[in-house]
Amino acid sequence: MSKLWQKTTNVNELVESFTVGRDTEFDAQMAAFDVLGSLAHTQMLQSIGLMSADDLQVVQAELKSIYADIQAGNFTIEPGVEDVHSQVEMLLTQRIGAAGKKIHSGRSRNDQVLVDLKLFFRHELQQVVEETEKLFKQLIELSEKHKDVLLPGYTHFQVAMPSSFGLWFGAYAESLVDDLELVLAAYKITNKNPLGSAAGYGSSFPLNRTMTTELLGFESLNYNVVYAQMGRGKTERIIAQALSSIAATLGKMAMDQTLYLSQNFAFVSYPDTLTTGSSIMPHKKNPDVWEIMRGKCNRLQALPNDVAMMTTNLPSGYHREMQLLKELLFPAFTELKNCLHMATFMLQNVTVNPDILDDPKYAYLFSVEVVNRMVLEGTPFRDAYKQVGLDIEKGEFNPDKTVNHTHEGSIGNLCNAQITEAMTKIVGSFKFDTVDWAVAKLVK
Amino acid sequence: MSKLWQKTTNVNELVESFTVGRDTEFDAQMAAFDVLGSLAHTQMLQSIGLMSADDLQVVQAELKSIYADIQAGNFTIEPGVEDVHSQVEMLLTQRIGAAGKKIHSGRSRNDQVLVDLKLFFRHELQQVVEETEKLFKQLIELSEKHKDVLLPGYTHFQVAMPSSFGLWFGAYAESLVDDLELVLAAYKITNKNPLGSAAGYGSSFPLNRTMTTELLGFESLNYNVVYAQMGRGKTERIIAQALSSIAATLGKMAMDQTLYLSQNFAFVSYPDTLTTGSSIMPHKKNPDVWEIMRGKCNRLQALPNDVAMMTTNLPSGYHREMQLLKELLFPAFTELKNCLHMATFMLQNVTVNPDILDDPKYAYLFSVEVVNRMVLEGTPFRDAYKQVGLDIEKGEFNPDKTVNHTHEGSIGNLCNAQITEAMTKIVGSFKFDTVDWAVAKLVK
Amino acid sequence: MSKLWQKTTNVNELVESFTVGRDTEFDAQMAAFDVLGSLAHTQMLQSIGLMSADDLQVVQAELKSIYADIQAGNFTIEPGVEDVHSQVEMLLTQRIGAAGKKIHSGRSRNDQVLVDLKLFFRHELQQVVEETEKLFKQLIELSEKHKDVLLPGYTHFQVAMPSSFGLWFGAYAESLVDDLELVLAAYKITNKNPLGSAAGYGSSFPLNRTMTTELLGFESLNYNVVYAQMGRGKTERIIAQALSSIAATLGKMAMDQTLYLSQNFAFVSYPDTLTTGSSIMPHKKNPDVWEIMRGKCNRLQALPNDVAMMTTNLPSGYHREMQLLKELLFPAFTELKNCLHMATFMLQNVTVNPDILDDPKYAYLFSVEVVNRMVLEGTPFRDAYKQVGLDIEKGEFNPDKTVNHTHEGSIGNLCNAQITEAMTKIVGSFKFDTVDWAVAKLVK
Amino acid sequence: MSKLWQKTTNVNELVESFTVGRDTEFDAQMAAFDVLGSLAHTQMLQSIGLMSADDLQVVQAELKSIYADIQAGNFTIEPGVEDVHSQVEMLLTQRIGAAGKKIHSGRSRNDQVLVDLKLFFRHELQQVVEETEKLFKQLIELSEKHKDVLLPGYTHFQVAMPSSFGLWFGAYAESLVDDLELVLAAYKITNKNPLGSAAGYGSSFPLNRTMTTELLGFESLNYNVVYAQMGRGKTERIIAQALSSIAATLGKMAMDQTLYLSQNFAFVSYPDTLTTGSSIMPHKKNPDVWEIMRGKCNRLQALPNDVAMMTTNLPSGYHREMQLLKELLFPAFTELKNCLHMATFMLQNVTVNPDILDDPKYAYLFSVEVVNRMVLEGTPFRDAYKQVGLDIEKGEFNPDKTVNHTHEGSIGNLCNAQITEAMTKIVGSFKFDTVDWAVAKLVK
Repeated sequence: MSKLWQKTTNVNELVESFTVGRDTEFDAQMAAFDVLGSLAHTQMLQSIGLMSADDLQVVQAELKSIYADIQAGNFTIEPGVEDVHSQVEMLLTQRIGAAGKKIHSGRSRNDQVLVDLKLFFRHELQQVVEETEKLFKQLIELSEKHKDVLLPGYTHFQVAMPSSFGLWFGAYAESLVDDLELVLAAYKITNKNPLGSAAGYGSSFPLNRTMTTELLGFESLNYNVVYAQMGRGKTERIIAQALSSIAATLGKMAMDQTLYLSQNFAFVSYPDTLTTGSSIMPHKKNPDVWEIMRGKCNRLQALPNDVAMMTTNLPSGYHREMQLLKELLFPAFTELKNCLHMATFMLQNVTVNPDILDDPKYAYLFSVEVVNRMVLEGTPFRDAYKQVGLDIEKGEFNPDKTVNHTHEGSIGNLCNAQITEAMTKIVGSFKFDTVDWAVAKLVK
Repeated sequence: MSKLWQKTTNVNELVESFTVGRDTEFDAQMAAFDVLGSLAHTQMLQSIGLMSADDLQVVQAELKSIYADIQAGNFTIEPGVEDVHSQVEMLLTQRIGAAGKKIHSGRSRNDQVLVDLKLFFRHELQQVVEETEKLFKQLIELSEKHKDVLLPGYTHFQVAMPSSFGLWFGAYAESLVDDLELVLAAYKITNKNPLGSAAGYGSSFPLNRTMTTELLGFESLNYNVVYAQMGRGKTERIIAQALSSIAATLGKMAMDQTLYLSQNFAFVSYPDTLTTGSSIMPHKKNPDVWEIMRGKCNRLQALPNDVAMMTTNLPSGYHREMQLLKELLFPAFTELKNCLHMATFMLQNVTVNPDILDDPKYAYLFSVEVVNRMVLEGTPFRDAYKQVGLDIEKGEFNPDKTVNHTHEGSIGNLCNAQITEAMTKIVGSFKFDTVDWAVAKLVK
Repeated sequence: MSKLWQKTTNVNELVESFTVGRDTEFDAQMAAFDVLGSLAHTQMLQSIGLMSADDLQVVQAELKSIYADIQAGNFTIEPGVEDVHSQVEMLLTQRIGAAGKKIHSGRSRNDQVLVDLKLFFRHELQQVVEETEKLFKQLIELSEKHKDVLLPGYTHFQVAMPSSFGLWFGAYAESLVDDLELVLAAYKITNKNPLGSAAGYGSSFPLNRTMTTELLGFESLNYNVVYAQMGRGKTERIIAQALSSIAATLGKMAMDQTLYLSQNFAFVSYPDTLTTGSSIMPHKKNPDVWEIMRGKCNRLQALPNDVAMMTTNLPSGYHREMQLLKELLFPAFTELKNCLHMATFMLQNVTVNPDILDDPKYAYLFSVEVVNRMVLEGTPFRDAYKQVGLDIEKGEFNPDKTVNHTHEGSIGNLCNAQITEAMTKIVGSFKFDTVDWAVAKLVK
Repeated sequence: MSKLWQKTTNVNELVESFTVGRDTEFDAQMAAFDVLGSLAHTQMLQSIGLMSADDLQVVQAELKSIYADIQAGNFTIEPGVEDVHSQVEMLLTQRIGAAGKKIHSGRSRNDQVLVDLKLFFRHELQQVVEETEKLFKQLIELSEKHKDVLLPGYTHFQVAMPSSFGLWFGAYAESLVDDLELVLAAYKITNKNPLGSAAGYGSSFPLNRTMTTELLGFESLNYNVVYAQMGRGKTERIIAQALSSIAATLGKMAMDQTLYLSQNFAFVSYPDTLTTGSSIMPHKKNPDVWEIMRGKCNRLQALPNDVAMMTTNLPSGYHREMQLLKELLFPAFTELKNCLHMATFMLQNVTVNPDILDDPKYAYLFSVEVVNRMVLEGTPFRDAYKQVGLDIEKGEFNPDKTVNHTHEGSIGNLCNAQITEAMTKIVGSFKFDTVDWAVAKLVK
């Protein structure tokens, strides 16, 4: 393997295989972002006199050409090349000669990786938000469509009070709004520029970090260079926490779905094509998609702990195992996006059972309704409560099954408009267009 | 035990002891917030005709009196009383008779607990932010004070490049700013009104939830009542994640401190009163405070996982074990506030070693400096790099130990003013005064 | 506070409160074991000439008297006394004078704590095994009693195949047998003598560690003194893993119970005294005990991770935060023993529904039975499978609901005798009588 | 994709890709074990009259041929084939016709997977034990070789007492012995036969489960069929706990190594080929292997929690996400074996620094030695302790640096023979030859 830092000794192959591991596999996913970083860095180098205007011109043209290749799917890290940075630098040097080598000035591998990761994470978080919004819309649509279909509400797994599909679908929609608060926090922490921190202790070059911050569309910068390096591991943990929050919402929904698909509930159903059979039980319609989703989301819920376990008790300064965090985070984005996509897809095909409450076991759902009605008609609460309890004990409880809930967020007043407004507001807070615009300008 | 919902059978004592556990111990901490909730709820009840103006007047007066008692430390949950809500209701009924019973109308125990928890968490998060700010200021002060004192910067635990106490203290200050992004997300998710969700499925009463939202100083409400209930466990998990982020920063600092206090580093020292001795090794000055802090912070880092493990795979709807989350969260606030306080206290007493780099083993710190100086004087980077490497191999490396870093966030340009501005901005985003004002109005 | 190691400076109170924390609370639970350790240590000291026979006699007599006091509940760590070891030493010195001070020779606080913890853990593990055995017997009894009562077996939450209460109760019994394999491993790792390791690097005294090993009933010793110290944290983690395995079994059973108590299943029921009501839903019988148990067991399942997070990445040698592990482990034993006890208690009161399979929705349970019957009568499996599938699709599936399963571990052949034998064997492997005998000899 | 259970509808491709995921990748690793299971199952089928002797003969011959192909590396799951079981059955049917189909009788996919997993895990655990033993021997060898070379022992990261390389290497060796206790527990739980449990509720076929237990070399069987199914997830969690224990030992050793390689300790060194350089700091020798190992081992330490998070709160009965546990467990075995191998390899190349204690900062190491020497010469402990403390405070502490520790497990008496004996004993407890012999008999 060609290593730029290699001097006179060959690193033992066993060592290399153990330490590099699957890293190039993940590095390849960062290629476009590595080029973005170099586009910004070289503009800055020229501005402080560390690169000539002529060199800059050829470097920029060639980097943009490599960027286009990457976007077109024509980029791989060649066997024997250590990482994505080396591959880009090698391509550049092959094509434009010595000028290609100059892009490394004023940078360390450490801050190059840091900036690549941040750009990659920023991009992935944007996609997560977009997929979350799609699922949100699907849930709101279902909430509105089935707002008049009642189902039992449970507490302690006991039949408790009337609920509705409007409430049930809408609840998960609103949950996603809150989840995005956490994603926004993760995004803000991510969207700060670490470039210029070098190996974590800064550099004697007169770098203009504000310039690269603006060029790369970062909202601000990780000022303190020691902190910039400290962000490695921390950014991953916080992103993992944000992803885990969406995963928790999805996982709970998946649990509801598997339960409600059981013959013991039969609240929802799906076309045969979306459930699977069993090798030995011909009548079954297994909710495999929701089960797998539950499993994947639980794994995602454990992810922040994995990151914390790998980083805790490490003192400040870079440690090599930080590299392994890619193996945790990169697939997590893909998994979560897939889960969001599949949830939307499944919900597009859900059928709700309109007659659930006809089953007599659900009569007790209305006990509180009856108590409250008596209260509204003047009976003190505790007396009404006692009366209904006695009726039930004597088997004389025959409730009227209409529900007239009117307050904000109740069966008859779902407030989906307000929830949608909250979603629009939080998505707007990400200001994705600022970033999109900066990136477009850099590569045009 | 007097239970309001009790009918004709006595709940087995064993069952009660097992299910109630340490709950009243934690409930007592929510007393003031339970009263706040009732102050708002009863105002709202009167506004929708469910409580007379006269009843409201006596209820409000007595609730304010109980609130004052609580603030003065004159409140306990009496033996045999199930929870804080029952204790408050009992006091009220003892003092003002039947009107006291009416405060329960239009509420369930579930949303009463939800709102108490949210008010409590909101209050605790405010205190956490205040303690964080104090530590931040201490760190910035130390960063400025010792900005010219150099220490070795490490990567891979290897002596790498010159760093400074300015950078080191400042890095942890900036870390706290990012941590507060997560705390802000947790605060926003917390600061939404669940009151009116009853047992998680809403109510047939024409409740005015917007009114209680404003009275209690909530920024918004948990609209969907099923979601409001779903917030139990979720709010705790997200708060735990926010706390864990501060804990991770503190934990890392504590690890640095224990290491730097070792005779093998000797970068910092503390007065004898702040370290402890050993029963058998008379010369030792053990950094017990930092070690205990590291341990407590690691436990806090595991906290979000504890919450997730207790809540995952539970379908929607209330489940009794939610109560146990108090045992996790309530002490966590105290622990974290103590850790923040002790870190500030310790740092007020730290002495830094001004002569660290005199030790010859740190000469290599300057290798990159020398490479960069050669580059700035015209030598191509790779050539300079090779030259210095060869000098070192030959034992001919005698660097000039001055450091001239000027870019943003580097040794010579710490950007503490910008970091402080970022801290001020994030703290301002919490808008604590809005909440303080609402609470003050409610109890005056 | 009186500290034996104190020299000339007072440790700052704030520091002390932060570092000592709740430690004396847990220390008190180790008192008896601290005395056992001293009884053995002093016998050994005398045997190597570091204590006179006369001193030994008074010391032993007084230690036994303190031991009796502890067993009678007449022991507390007095305010201002640092820990249990100081309290015991202080009592001893008050009563017998200078000889009392000599018990500290050849020990460090570190190995004294280590041995106390091991003796305490060993004792607690024994109690856990005993409670597990009681629950096991209850489960086997229920399995036998209800072996002919069928219930639906689920896969994917879908009605799948006939199961029985015999299988269901018996499964959890057998699960406990395997859990004890892990407890046995934890017990063996615990039951090794660390005494003599001093502060983790041994001692220049000619200690006879084999002698204390035998006196304290340890199976063997932690030979290497550095490893003996390394066992702190490791022992706790492995014990936590063992406890978590029992907790996982209990937690799953609790989940089954809460589900099967739901009106949507109604497989089991409990007396009203063992369920609780709701403040607003008068008809409900909430399975709070099982829910709280599920929550406690999930917390226990997260416990090993808490320990790992607090200990990972700490290099070898003692670190002060090890002390905090007591706060995790000590309550965990109590919680688990309570859960085991409550599970046994609840199951003593369970009623099973004998008519579950009368519900037509469970007819499909028998699809595989019919397929298999056809196969046994000569139809190829795939053909029989297809035929039954088509019958179900056409609504022509009317199965015979008798079940004739005869193989080992099936409905008709539960193998409870073999499972009980396995339980007896694993419990026997602990050899508790050896330990009981050694302890009895030491204190008599 | 050809699915054996498919009836009339095509499962949506999106669903399939989401639910199958990377499963075939892992399934391929179970191929040999799937064949072993079928070899035993068919012998049993013949014995109970469900397969003719003629069919058995051709089936056995062909299965053995497939087994040989697998061992020779000539087996893949063909595109479009669902899993390893289908691939084997398909090959069989292609080669021997209808008889091939009969191997499925009396089994479900569920118990087929269960038995494959158990055989696979059993095999992997054996390899883990073998690699552990190799590392153990290397550590003991180093301990003996360097038993007279002293290094400082630390507590609280403070220089505490003299230690030795003999102690340090030997401690990790002894740690592995205890780790194997946990591996043994996991192995025993794994090494029980689930075959015959069908879909988790047994079968109406008169299966002889004792016969397959013996044929497959299992020590016993999972009797209760509901428990056999419950073992899925539980077995994985317990194995993960066992692996995590070895990982914790390795991770701690890796932390020690990275620290001791730092210029601030310089206790050990490695050839240049086994460390790596830096792109910008030419003098550095980074301990990347140990850092990556620490990271991998920490990930392994988080593994049991991942498994617990994915399985907790799932009621009894199979759930589809169990399949995803392969993605956690299968790579974990490979990772741990690689870590064990690399640790052994690195230690074969370690050089220890023989002159560490010449550094004056380590003089205080001997304070306890001196105290103890005074005690042995008659000075009361507390007086000796005070005297040495005062000498140190006055700067008059000039110790004799010889160490004369003689008790079991101390510097002068490492007890490596006893530790080796304990290792031999625990490895013997696995009885791998019994299993090897059964497998050999099955395939010969």
